[in-house]
Amino acid sequence: MRRVAICGFSMCKVGNHYQKSLSELFAEVALDALESAGNPDIDAIYVGNMSASEHTFQKNLGVLLSNSIGLNSTPCKLVECADGSGGAALYEGYNSVASGLYDVVIVGGVEKMSEVLQGENRKIRSMTIEQEYEAFHGLSIDGEFAIIMRYYMHYYDVPKRQFALFAVQMHKHAAGNRYAKLPYEISLEAALNMQTIADPLTLFDMAPTGDGSAAVVLCPLERAREFTDTPVEIAGAGQASDTLALYDRKNILTFKATSKAAEIALKTSKLKISDVDLFEVHDSYTISGFLALEDLGVIERGKVGQAVEEGLIDLDGPAPTNLSGGLKARGHPGGATGVYQAVEATLQLRGEAGKNQADPAEVALIQNAAGIGSLVTVHVFKRI
Amino acid sequence: MRRVAICGFSMCKVGNHYQKSLSELFAEVALDALESAGNPDIDAIYVGNMSASEHTFQKNLGVLLSNSIGLNSTPCKLVECADGSGGAALYEGYNSVASGLYDVVIVGGVEKMSEVLQGENRKIRSMTIEQEYEAFHGLSIDGEFAIIMRYYMHYYDVPKRQFALFAVQMHKHAAGNRYAKLPYEISLEAALNMQTIADPLTLFDMAPTGDGSAAVVLCPLERAREFTDTPVEIAGAGQASDTLALYDRKNILTFKATSKAAEIALKTSKLKISDVDLFEVHDSYTISGFLALEDLGVIERGKVGQAVEEGLIDLDGPAPTNLSGGLKARGHPGGATGVYQAVEATLQLRGEAGKNQADPAEVALIQNAAGIGSLVTVHVFKRI
Repeated sequence: MRRVAICGFSMCKVGNHYQKSLSELFAEVALDALESAGNPDIDAIYVGNMSASEHTFQKNLGVLLSNSIGLNSTPCKLVECADGSGGAALYEGYNSVASGLYDVVIVGGVEKMSEVLQGENRKIRSMTIEQEYEAFHGLSIDGEFAIIMRYYMHYYDVPKRQFALFAVQMHKHAAGNRYAKLPYEISLEAALNMQTIADPLTLFDMAPTGDGSAAVVLCPLERAREFTDTPVEIAGAGQASDTLALYDRKNILTFKATSKAAEIALKTSKLKISDVDLFEVHDSYTISGFLALEDLGVIERGKVGQAVEEGLIDLDGPAPTNLSGGLKARGHPGGATGVYQAVEATLQLRGEAGKNQADPAEVALIQNAAGIGSLVTVHVFKRI
Repeated sequence: MRRVAICGFSMCKVGNHYQKSLSELFAEVALDALESAGNPDIDAIYVGNMSASEHTFQKNLGVLLSNSIGLNSTPCKLVECADGSGGAALYEGYNSVASGLYDVVIVGGVEKMSEVLQGENRKIRSMTIEQEYEAFHGLSIDGEFAIIMRYYMHYYDVPKRQFALFAVQMHKHAAGNRYAKLPYEISLEAALNMQTIADPLTLFDMAPTGDGSAAVVLCPLERAREFTDTPVEIAGAGQASDTLALYDRKNILTFKATSKAAEIALKTSKLKISDVDLFEVHDSYTISGFLALEDLGVIERGKVGQAVEEGLIDLDGPAPTNLSGGLKARGHPGGATGVYQAVEATLQLRGEAGKNQADPAEVALIQNAAGIGSLVTVHVFKRI
C-alpha cells in the first residue's frame, strides 16, 4: 500500500445557507480545495452525504456534484453511512490512493439540512437508527442517546453537570473558530438550565445540524510536493461496524467500533494513542463525546466529565479535543462532518488553526461515527 | 492490478416479496451466495441499493445488511447511484479485489419497492433525474424517456412497432427464466395496443419495478479454485458519467457514458465488442435498450428495431441480448438490477442458464445505467 497525503482542502462556515443549492455549496468548496492543490487532474470524486434524498429528492447525487465542478465524465462515488458518511468517504478515497487504484482524488462532504420543517428534520435524524424494530416502535435517535446517557449517569454515578461542562468547553473552542455555527461561549448555568429534550438529554447535550461543505484533495505522499509545500500525511485509517440496533448490544456504555477502528488506524500508522497531540471526536451528543474519549483509550471509563473539568481537553491540556468546537458548537452538517474533521486536523498540523492552534501538533486523530456508533471511521494524520 | 473472479452467486425471483423485510431479502440471497463459494471469510461487503431511505426509512443500510448475515464488524459499503447502483457496487467490489485492498468480498444488490403507494413509486423513480430544474418543473423519468423516444422515432423515421417488437422479444426470453417477474410471452398486437403512459411511451415500453436481491462473491482469480470448480473471470470493468440533466446534453440520442465505460472495460479485458457472445443491457425503457445496443457498437444507429425483427438478439442470433428477459420482463428491482445482470452472465458462462442457454457463451458483457444514462458501468465476463 502506498502512503497518502492531503495536498489541498477547503470548507465553508456551518450555518443556514438558504441562498445556495446543494450542488452550489459543494462546487464552491470543491473548486477552492482543488485550487489550493494547484488544480491537479483528478481521477475520482468521493462524496459523503446523508440526506440529499430527503432534502432535495436527488438520487445519483454523485453525478450532480461532479457536473457542478465541470467534470462530466469523472466517476463520482457517493458514500452514505448516516452521519458517518464523511469519514467513510474519506476512508474510501484514502484506500483508492493507497491501493494504487487512483492517483489524485477529491473527497467531499456536503449536506443541506436547513430547508425542511423541524418535524421532518427530526424524522431524518432518526433514520440513522435501526428502523425495523426500534424506530418502528417509536424510538428516536435522541431517545437512544438519552437511554445511554441515563445508564452512564447511573452506572458511574455521574451528575448531569459533567455533561454540561463538556458543552461549555465545546462552545469555548468554537468561539475561536470562524467556521463554527455557534461561535460563542455559554455559561455553565445556562447549560444546566437548558430545556430537556429527552430526559436526561437537554438541548445543550445535542449537536445542532446545519448546512455545510468541506473537501480535501488526496494524492500519493511521494507526489505531494508537486501540489503543495505543506502536505499532511494520512498515516493510518480504520473502519469498523457494530450492531445497528441498540437492543442487540451486550454493553451500551461502549461503542466498540471506535476501539476497533482506532486500533487498525494506529497500527497502520505505527503510532500509539499517547502519540496523538489532538483529537476531533464525534460528539453528536455530549454522551457520544464521552464514549469516544473512553473508547479511544484517552481516559479511564466514567472519568471523562471530571477530567474535562480538570482541563484534559483544553487547548493547552494533555489531550486537546474538538478545538473546532466539535459537532456540538462547530455544528453537525450530517454526512459532511467527517470531512470537516479532516480539514480541521489538516489546519492544525499545518499550524494554520489561528486562535485555536495546538502546540505541539504533530499527530492528530479524527473519529467519525454513524448513528449510535454503528459504523465508525478513524483516521490518523501526521505532520511531514 | 490482480485478475478477479466470481466464485459464488445467488439471486431470488423478482416480484412482490411482501412477507420479507429488506434485510431478510438480502440475507437469504447473500448467505446462499456465500454457501455456493464454500463459506469463505469475507473482508468487506458492497451493496447496491437505491431507495431504502424512501421505502424503509433506513439510513446506514450497510450496517443493517452486514448484521443480517451475522457479520457485526465487517465493513459494509453502500453504493447509491440510482438504478445504476448494482453495477456501481460491483465496480467498487471488483476494484477492491483487483487493487489488492481486499481478498474476498461479497457484492449484493437489494431493493424492496413493492410496499409503497403507486404515487410514491412514481416519485421515487423520478428522483433519478436532475431535481433542481428538470424535476422541479414537472418532468418525470417517464417524461424524459418519452422525449428521447419521440426524437429517436422522428430522427431515424422509426415506427412504434419496432419498440413493441423489442418488448415482445424480452417477454419471449423471460418465459424461460424462472427468476423473472413477468415470465410469459406477449403478442405484438397486445404490445401495440397497450395504454399510453407518456406519449409515445406505452406501459410495455417500461420495465416494471420489483423486489429483488442478488449477490456475487469475488476473489482473486488465482485463488478462485479454492472456492469453486467453475469460476468466471471479470476480465474488465469500466465506469463513466454524463450530465445528470437532459438539457445539458448536446445529443440526446446517445448515452455516451455507455460507449466510454465499454471502451474502458473492453480495453482492460483485451477483447473487442465482436468477441462478446451475449449481452445484458439496461432496458429500463425499450428506448434505453435501443441506445445501449447502439452505444456499445453492436448495431448501426437507428437500426435496432429492424435488426431485432431480423433476429439480432435472439437466443441463436448474432448478438443474444437480455436472455434473462431484461429489465422489461425479468423485472427492474432498482439498485439490485446491476447485480442480477452479473448473476445472469455468470450462469450463462457456466453453462447453467437452462432453457435460455446461449452457445457459444465464452464472453458476456453487462451494462447498467443510472437514470437517463448519467452514470454507466460496464463489466466484461469471461469463461475460464
